[in-house]
Amino acid sequence: MNLKKLVGEKAAEFIEEGMVVGLGTGSTAYYMVEALGRRVKKGLHITGVTTSAQTKIQAEALGIPLKSVDEVDQIDITIDGADEISSTYQGIKGGGGALLFEKIVARYSDTVIWIVDDSKLVKEIGDFPLPVEVIPYGSQQLLKLFKERGYRPAFRQTEDGERYLTDAGHYIIDLQMKKIADPHTLADWLDHQTGVVEHGLFLDCVNTVIVGSEKGVEIQNVR
Amino acid sequence: MNLKKLVGEKAAEFIEEGMVVGLGTGSTAYYMVEALGRRVKKGLHITGVTTSAQTKIQAEALGIPLKSVDEVDQIDITIDGADEISSTYQGIKGGGGALLFEKIVARYSDTVIWIVDDSKLVKEIGDFPLPVEVIPYGSQQLLKLFKERGYRPAFRQTEDGERYLTDAGHYIIDLQMKKIADPHTLADWLDHQTGVVEHGLFLDCVNTVIVGSEKGVEIQNVR
Repeated sequence: MNLKKLVGEKAAEFIEEGMVVGLGTGSTAYYMVEALGRRVKKGLHITGVTTSAQTKIQAEALGIPLKSVDEVDQIDITIDGADEISSTYQGIKGGGGALLFEKIVARYSDTVIWIVDDSKLVKEIGDFPLPVEVIPYGSQQLLKLFKERGYRPAFRQTEDGERYLTDAGHYIIDLQMKKIADPHTLADWLDHQTGVVEHGLFLDCVNTVIVGSEKGVEIQNVR
Repeated sequence: MNLKKLVGEKAAEFIEEGMVVGLGTGSTAYYMVEALGRRVKKGLHITGVTTSAQTKIQAEALGIPLKSVDEVDQIDITIDGADEISSTYQGIKGGGGALLFEKIVARYSDTVIWIVDDSKLVKEIGDFPLPVEVIPYGSQQLLKLFKERGYRPAFRQTEDGERYLTDAGHYIIDLQMKKIADPHTLADWLDHQTGVVEHGLFLDCVNTVIVGSEKGVEIQNVR
């Protein structure tokens, strides 16, 4: 059973006529966008707000009308994947490299839905590398700083061994934290670092998690 | 008397053989860079770390050897201008649009010297518009948020009426605060806003202020 397809299609059912919908990025969000595209072809009217160049290309090809986050008053529902979700619903996102635009779109959304397979549910987050989006100028200094703090940092690279560039033209440094006991304190520290644009800690931001497992789909209402 | 020239040339005297020097940006830093260029021509060996494309062009033309902030271990002294300095030595910078790289370079500097004419010294900062460097995607939403908080925000524009782009490819929103009673609280709030890359509040960061007035040059040691 394709769990990503299962939850992606389930999430698309939450979208109603006339809504402004934040469209996430990644392999699970992909199926949600495909399912929405099919509903749009059948007559559903929505406006999509994309979180990456990649999702924009997909949504355009499906004929989903799009606007920038700056052209709408607010977003009704954003549906996106997540790389890890703790037992208190704090998340790590950014494995796909779109964390900045994903966080911006989530910030202006009334409701945020995360769609995951059950392998993403953990007690404490941190096993998944935490992405930090940084300004290229000064990024070696930040790498050194992260290293000194024991965060085992590494610049993300492309398959060709080039340094990965985000849609906004920044680098990503992945931190191998293993366990993040206190995500709020870490997020606060990262927010204050000069040269850090954004990080993959998405805290107190999700309203509903749709989890797919071999047993089927479970909807967890968080707040 | 050209006060900018006076303090710029005075500051250049602080630089000693072999130092790594952060080179600020703007009309006052310009004279410091010119004076350093003359000393380099006479045999002084230094390495400059620039804070903008503009200063890089000037320093290269003067024959000052340059490295990126990522190619040095640390910076000995950074000399830069400031737009406003409070009685407790908290500053607003970024009138010239280089606040992000200026803050990155200052962050890795052992000593930070600001050079100003006495018109920049104020009791409380805030009369000078506070620059906030922001990610273009979502910047209209940030503008709205700043407006709701009464910060009278405006996108910075070029002389041609285009939206101003920083060296890092971001926009600047200038906030007309008039008075910033508690700069630390405001800085903390701005640091936490998604889409804010950096802001022009430079707090607890300057070591020495060199002030030029009609009476001459005064050196104020801060910390």
